[in-house]
Amino acid sequence: MRAAVYEGPGNVRVEDVPDPALVLDTDAIVAVTDAAIGGSDLWAYRGYGQRPPGARIGHEFLGLVTEVGADVRTVRPGDRVLAPFMWSCGVCDYCRGGLTSSCLDGGTFSEVGHDGGQGEAVRVPHADGTLVVLPPADAVPATRLLPLSDVMATGHHAALSAGVDHETTVAIIGDGAVGLCAVLAARRLGARRIIAVGHHAERLHLAVDFGASDIVQGSGEETLEKVMSLTGGVDAVCECVGAQAAFDDAFAMTRDGGRVGYVGVPHLVEGIDLSKIFARNIGIRGGMAPARAYLPALLDAVIDGQLDPSAVLDLTLGLEELADGYAMMDDRLALKAHITI
Amino acid sequence: MRAAVYEGPGNVRVEDVPDPALVLDTDAIVAVTDAAIGGSDLWAYRGYGQRPPGARIGHEFLGLVTEVGADVRTVRPGDRVLAPFMWSCGVCDYCRGGLTSSCLDGGTFSEVGHDGGQGEAVRVPHADGTLVVLPPADAVPATRLLPLSDVMATGHHAALSAGVDHETTVAIIGDGAVGLCAVLAARRLGARRIIAVGHHAERLHLAVDFGASDIVQGSGEETLEKVMSLTGGVDAVCECVGAQAAFDDAFAMTRDGGRVGYVGVPHLVEGIDLSKIFARNIGIRGGMAPARAYLPALLDAVIDGQLDPSAVLDLTLGLEELADGYAMMDDRLALKAHITI
Repeated sequence: MRAAVYEGPGNVRVEDVPDPALVLDTDAIVAVTDAAIGGSDLWAYRGYGQRPPGARIGHEFLGLVTEVGADVRTVRPGDRVLAPFMWSCGVCDYCRGGLTSSCLDGGTFSEVGHDGGQGEAVRVPHADGTLVVLPPADAVPATRLLPLSDVMATGHHAALSAGVDHETTVAIIGDGAVGLCAVLAARRLGARRIIAVGHHAERLHLAVDFGASDIVQGSGEETLEKVMSLTGGVDAVCECVGAQAAFDDAFAMTRDGGRVGYVGVPHLVEGIDLSKIFARNIGIRGGMAPARAYLPALLDAVIDGQLDPSAVLDLTLGLEELADGYAMMDDRLALKAHITI
Repeated sequence: MRAAVYEGPGNVRVEDVPDPALVLDTDAIVAVTDAAIGGSDLWAYRGYGQRPPGARIGHEFLGLVTEVGADVRTVRPGDRVLAPFMWSCGVCDYCRGGLTSSCLDGGTFSEVGHDGGQGEAVRVPHADGTLVVLPPADAVPATRLLPLSDVMATGHHAALSAGVDHETTVAIIGDGAVGLCAVLAARRLGARRIIAVGHHAERLHLAVDFGASDIVQGSGEETLEKVMSLTGGVDAVCECVGAQAAFDDAFAMTRDGGRVGYVGVPHLVEGIDLSKIFARNIGIRGGMAPARAYLPALLDAVIDGQLDPSAVLDLTLGLEELADGYAMMDDRLALKAHITI
């Protein structure tokens, strides 16, 4: 089959690779119909992280089940299914407790030795624990569902980690796909006021479409002053960048006693200086989103028409054009690429 | 009057100082009957922090009101009262919201220009917002009440910040007065299991008296292994030390998705490396305890006989012997000194 392979910084190629096959009785094979390029793929593309050349890439996909192992009970060939970015067993204490990202037998699609989402097919370990069955494509298009595999679940995690409820004034730092999805999530959780903070006018306009009450464009001191003048300090911040400056801004704009929910992978965060938040009782919570645990509720919301994150996908390409998607996202000419296969 | 003055590292002296007088109509004067030496006094004594020589010291006291300003409504001369370690107005948004430690017009007893608790009398700003009226001394002795001014409120804050409830297995790191009070607080909140971790056998025995299910004596890797073998990882940790090693241990012994409540003033904490907790979704919450907000409930619990932190006071001295109290606490010959005046 054809699948994306990371060959080094700035170099992702679609190549011929072996077709996936069932290995364990709990596996399923999914023929991918739709995939996406995500922020962490882009970090890899830019040379951050430990991905070795030759590894697969991509972890956001949906498609049709073609084959299942003998022990698989909840999906069958022909089912249209969505996978979260990590597989999980569904039965360990962490999975039962809703923290599927800490599954004792879990893993991330495209990790070494496993298929990535950007390819024609994927072997899905723990199919029963991992996959959710979707309505048919003519009922709900892929673009509304695909973001649930990662960015929408992660935005939801940011909002939950920040404790957003109907009384909350929340700032969302970051206008990438995760930040925009955090706006959607905060709105869905009933936030009283949502301030979207980012660099890009076009993305901030999308934040308004998604439910932001206010937008603040820029960075550093000026941005901070704008948020403070709008709100006098927010109850909660969703940190959707993963960089030191975003954390510093998050703490500075949070009211004493407030909460910072963080989901940006902390690639460029030196550390949290507790002496700056001790007297102010600001809490920090978040991390890797347990996407699988959130899928049933988010999927229902999409099916009911209450949630539609499809607008984060602003570029559509075929699999053979995948490299163009990376290049355009790297140049910030696209927010998030949808790959049709 | 006589009051303690910080004259430099290792040097706290009781000296003649001016009697306090009402300055604002919202002030009260309290004749101190009982004071205590606390952990943060000891940090100052050891030369950490910014306390200038000549400043007063101490912020844990109770006593009798002798005089009130024209606007004071809730206390009157003759009332036996307790102050938390900070004064607070009681009417700003933070005070009304229960975060009295962030009062917009608050401050800490013994800060520059203000009386300390270790002296014969104290001017109490915002008397209505700050003081709580106590039962008479023959009904409830001072030793049960004095810890509420700081260490008991702080231990309670640690337990609340760690999210302790009846389902929680919690480790308490630190066997100082705050850690021991966190054991009491966790028990009062119904914790399923309480593991007290510290260095001192005698203090850990007190932890058992206070409700610890298990004690682990030692430090570093060995301690961690003991906690893990007892629990397989705890749901929550109360970090009651304020040092890097305690934080590192806290993260290492917390189950994924768990919570670290921290109240140790972070004197010796370099920073929190989020990359170590991101994948594990461990939350961090805590800081300076809003002691005043907790006093009504904690006072009721003491009066009802459900809470008795008096055993943390293991040394009683007169005011003129105060320096001995500092020296003994510094040498770990005493846990916490009660100063009768």
